[in-house]
Amino acid sequence: MPTTQLGLMNPDELAAEHEKQTEAYRALQARGLALDLTRGKPSPEQLDLASELLTLPGADFRDGSGTDCRNYGGLQGLPELRAIFGELLSIPVANLVAGNNASLEIMHDLVVWALLHGTVDSVRPWSQEPVVRFLCPSPGYDRHFAITESVGIEMIPVRMNPDGPDVAEVERLLSADPQIKGMWCVPNYANPTGAVYSDEVVRALATMPAAAPDFRLFWDNAYAVHPLGEAFPPAYDVLGMADEAGHPNRPYVFASTSKVTFAGAGVSFLGASTANLDWYLSHFGKKSIGPDKLNQLRHLRFFGDADGVRAHMAKHREILAPKFALVQEILEDRLGASKVASWTEPTGGYFVSLDVLEGTAARTIALAKDAGIALTAAGSAFPYKQDPEDKNIRLAPSFPSTDELAAAMDGVATCVLLAATEKLRG
Amino acid sequence: MPTTQLGLMNPDELAAEHEKQTEAYRALQARGLALDLTRGKPSPEQLDLASELLTLPGADFRDGSGTDCRNYGGLQGLPELRAIFGELLSIPVANLVAGNNASLEIMHDLVVWALLHGTVDSVRPWSQEPVVRFLCPSPGYDRHFAITESVGIEMIPVRMNPDGPDVAEVERLLSADPQIKGMWCVPNYANPTGAVYSDEVVRALATMPAAAPDFRLFWDNAYAVHPLGEAFPPAYDVLGMADEAGHPNRPYVFASTSKVTFAGAGVSFLGASTANLDWYLSHFGKKSIGPDKLNQLRHLRFFGDADGVRAHMAKHREILAPKFALVQEILEDRLGASKVASWTEPTGGYFVSLDVLEGTAARTIALAKDAGIALTAAGSAFPYKQDPEDKNIRLAPSFPSTDELAAAMDGVATCVLLAATEKLRG
Repeated sequence: MPTTQLGLMNPDELAAEHEKQTEAYRALQARGLALDLTRGKPSPEQLDLASELLTLPGADFRDGSGTDCRNYGGLQGLPELRAIFGELLSIPVANLVAGNNASLEIMHDLVVWALLHGTVDSVRPWSQEPVVRFLCPSPGYDRHFAITESVGIEMIPVRMNPDGPDVAEVERLLSADPQIKGMWCVPNYANPTGAVYSDEVVRALATMPAAAPDFRLFWDNAYAVHPLGEAFPPAYDVLGMADEAGHPNRPYVFASTSKVTFAGAGVSFLGASTANLDWYLSHFGKKSIGPDKLNQLRHLRFFGDADGVRAHMAKHREILAPKFALVQEILEDRLGASKVASWTEPTGGYFVSLDVLEGTAARTIALAKDAGIALTAAGSAFPYKQDPEDKNIRLAPSFPSTDELAAAMDGVATCVLLAATEKLRG
Repeated sequence: MPTTQLGLMNPDELAAEHEKQTEAYRALQARGLALDLTRGKPSPEQLDLASELLTLPGADFRDGSGTDCRNYGGLQGLPELRAIFGELLSIPVANLVAGNNASLEIMHDLVVWALLHGTVDSVRPWSQEPVVRFLCPSPGYDRHFAITESVGIEMIPVRMNPDGPDVAEVERLLSADPQIKGMWCVPNYANPTGAVYSDEVVRALATMPAAAPDFRLFWDNAYAVHPLGEAFPPAYDVLGMADEAGHPNRPYVFASTSKVTFAGAGVSFLGASTANLDWYLSHFGKKSIGPDKLNQLRHLRFFGDADGVRAHMAKHREILAPKFALVQEILEDRLGASKVASWTEPTGGYFVSLDVLEGTAARTIALAKDAGIALTAAGSAFPYKQDPEDKNIRLAPSFPSTDELAAAMDGVATCVLLAATEKLRG
């Protein structure tokens, strides 16, 4: 019986396989698809779940404390909404800020203010350091890396394991180099691998020694309440862990409702120590008289309480879980036997990380593009967009309909196989 | 007949006047007031004018081009809303960005990105300049000065005339000093004097030579549609004037609906040359996937068109004009004859600028505070909060009810007179 593993085929078998995939690719091109798997956007059906927000808050514009949410003020955001997300994130209400529609903006500002002013633990502004470095678990989130790259912060890739970043590697780097001032982390359903950081990894990152007193974990808990199954991920008290270890100001915790309610019109959150928040608000107060409290009130009325958020996320799950299952099914069906690809099986979040034959990711993505299937640009999940092995592809199954997703994934599989046979034939 | 002018009184007359005002001040304190004239906040009645926004946009979440305003994207903001404000501001739609709820945030970001990256015309980032200076027409807006002060930009006060900043002084400074990189301007109903820049002043600022190729006018047209009478202020095409003079990238124009709809939940705008906007959006795209488009859609539905904005502002005028008239009446009645104070008579905007006897502004404000009347802190309208003559007080009549305003203004007048008699008695 002939092998199904591309890597074990003899030249004739490989030529036949290449011919077969070339045919399949021609047929794929002939379909004239126009599909997009690039970004982790909620689908219209998911957005519909929050339709009620479109007419909220209604006539009553006051929160429970009587604040007129239409007017200026309230830098820290509405206490009642902070209470809901404080419960979900294991963060005391007093240590949580509610902001505008993009947690990315808060991350950006924290980096910029550290550069211009230094953090509360910095001896000088980061911009006056000879060099500033960030640890970047890779593959990771391209928009994180874009922030650090844009301000000239040197990015050091760190290996991602299924339970989070390689903490031995992190500790080795962090204890030796006082120029490492930050680390990007997505602790739950990491973008793009779907890894959930284990208790041990979270604790290690929060408590390990760091040469820089002003080292910061940029802890982007973007998918804190986004499981694909029934169980919610753990909400470790990373602020408490760091505090107990003598690093109270180490974590900056981020979250948002971008993938809970409306992607473009949600509410962002920042959780941190009191000293960090005082520092943050003193700078935030220079650029704003307060966040959009009416949008926060809308969200407060819509959710009611933390259980309201949990119940809402169950509805997302019903839409998303079948799409993620379909991706697994098609990848296994089309690529399983070939042994040229592997992929993650996330239990939450928005992405599947697909590793193809080394040296063929860029080619696969280019082939897909020419067949009308947009994939995230090659290397996107790595610092400086450099995938050292040219093998990683981030798949974002949330936005397309099930039919579109099936067509796109089938097409991607064809491109993976065609690129692999090209490469193996040399 | 004895004089009513404090400055002309003999010691006995002054002693009697001091006694009289001391009595009046005791009576004022006995009233136990708790009033606030500190900030230019719209009153609840003004906010009520936009109640319709509280249930908008309604079920239809798409703009005229079909964009799903709930989802990510659209860095520049909704074209239809930009068209409305482009008409009001004399700015082409393509050169206008619609943002989140604070134009202050855009100003802050433009300063920060110039520091970190340089503007499109800079030879190096501003942070690498030996010194960066901004011209600050004074009295001016405290939050402008707070941004430049917080990042160590040196502020140079410039004299404010009734038709805008003293352009001769500006030209002398600007042509000689390449380190002057920016200038804060509020061209219509300037905060706090209410000055409306004349055609000549606008043209001079837009066209005059500057030693720095990357000199920027931070043109905060916060009160572009905020007259107290029927006539709207002129909307000079400052971008066009600067372009024709060979300085296309000089103006950054700001506006917002904070004092049109909801102070905390409005929409901000940035108008600038194409090169400036490309530069702005390239940096903005690092911190956001787009502004809150649903809030922009809400505003679009609420206004309909530019005439909708004009009609809406007429309703504000009906509420505000009587309050500003009351301030004039009480100031004239209580302080006119004393000749120790002068004040502006704004035709729009949110403030009255009161000049008291030199050396008595801080004392007047302290007296008012002890009588339960909060006034903007002494010196607030000047760079570094330093009023060189200690005579300026910013009055913000919009928020209190008419009764409260009358009580507060009467109390302020008493404090002005008491502080003046103290000072004159030596």
